[in-house]
Amino acid sequence: MGMIGYAKAGGEMARVFRLVTATAGMLAILPISAESADDLKLPASFRNWYHVNTMVIDKDSPLFEAMGGMHNVYINSTGEAALKKGKPYPDKTMLLVDLHEFTISDGSYVEGPRKATAIMLKNKKKYASTGGWGFQAWAGGDPTKPLVTDPTKQCFECHQPKKDQDYVYSTYIP
Amino acid sequence: MGMIGYAKAGGEMARVFRLVTATAGMLAILPISAESADDLKLPASFRNWYHVNTMVIDKDSPLFEAMGGMHNVYINSTGEAALKKGKPYPDKTMLLVDLHEFTISDGSYVEGPRKATAIMLKNKKKYASTGGWGFQAWAGGDPTKPLVTDPTKQCFECHQPKKDQDYVYSTYIP
Repeated sequence: MGMIGYAKAGGEMARVFRLVTATAGMLAILPISAESADDLKLPASFRNWYHVNTMVIDKDSPLFEAMGGMHNVYINSTGEAALKKGKPYPDKTMLLVDLHEFTISDGSYVEGPRKATAIMLKNKKKYASTGGWGFQAWAGGDPTKPLVTDPTKQCFECHQPKKDQDYVYSTYIP
Repeated sequence: MGMIGYAKAGGEMARVFRLVTATAGMLAILPISAESADDLKLPASFRNWYHVNTMVIDKDSPLFEAMGGMHNVYINSTGEAALKKGKPYPDKTMLLVDLHEFTISDGSYVEGPRKATAIMLKNKKKYASTGGWGFQAWAGGDPTKPLVTDPTKQCFECHQPKKDQDYVYSTYIP
């Protein structure tokens, strides 16, 4: 799908989004549904998830200031098969970056304490305007310190070039 | 335990080893026991184990030639609690280094294909002469290409300084 096709789909989804927003106002008194923004929570168990790969963003990278460090990437069991097949991810897939500081000791990059934790949660309908992914991150991995207020600007714009990988940078390394 | 104590234990274990070797000849027809050297096998499922940490040994490291690359360290479920408590590991703990190549792209270290896979398996009695750990590694992670013929020289001598961590370099990073 080229840029035109993509823009079209985006417009359609924007309409859906406005409709959902309008409807949500009327339902405020009902219990929070599975579609609530609350689904963008820091999962407790991610250190036991499948480790996808690791990347180190070093001082020479233009991304260092924003997200320098050691990126340990994990995926929940929902998404594991799709990762291995290189196919689009099913809803409820969560990818998580556990971002740690590092020190350089005698030519080795050694993992240090956590700097932040970031997630992508797949929900094709709810997050249609950002490629079907909801984004959130927490400073120091502290659930009381969310960092993402504008997922399009802060997250999706950088993931957009990876549309052919369902907006995910990481790929399966056997 | 100082060096003298260690040497003593080593002598004792050498006797045990000779006894086991002599006995093994008579038992060749029986099924291979759990104590066989066969326990140093490449586990099939390690990518689903607990990811302990990652370290990158870069070109500036004196270790680069021997084991440069991205070291993804995993532990089996037997050892997970001991890792988290910083306590000595129980028998049947296995730590595994999945060593990958890396490329440097615009200041980021990106994980590449597997170079080798190395394991440490705990068996206090069987591997007493090497700190209670059996060592093996395979080129390219290929089970038909073992690399370790002299575990003391090739592995244990470098692990010995970490005696106070049960000879394991990796520690738990919450």
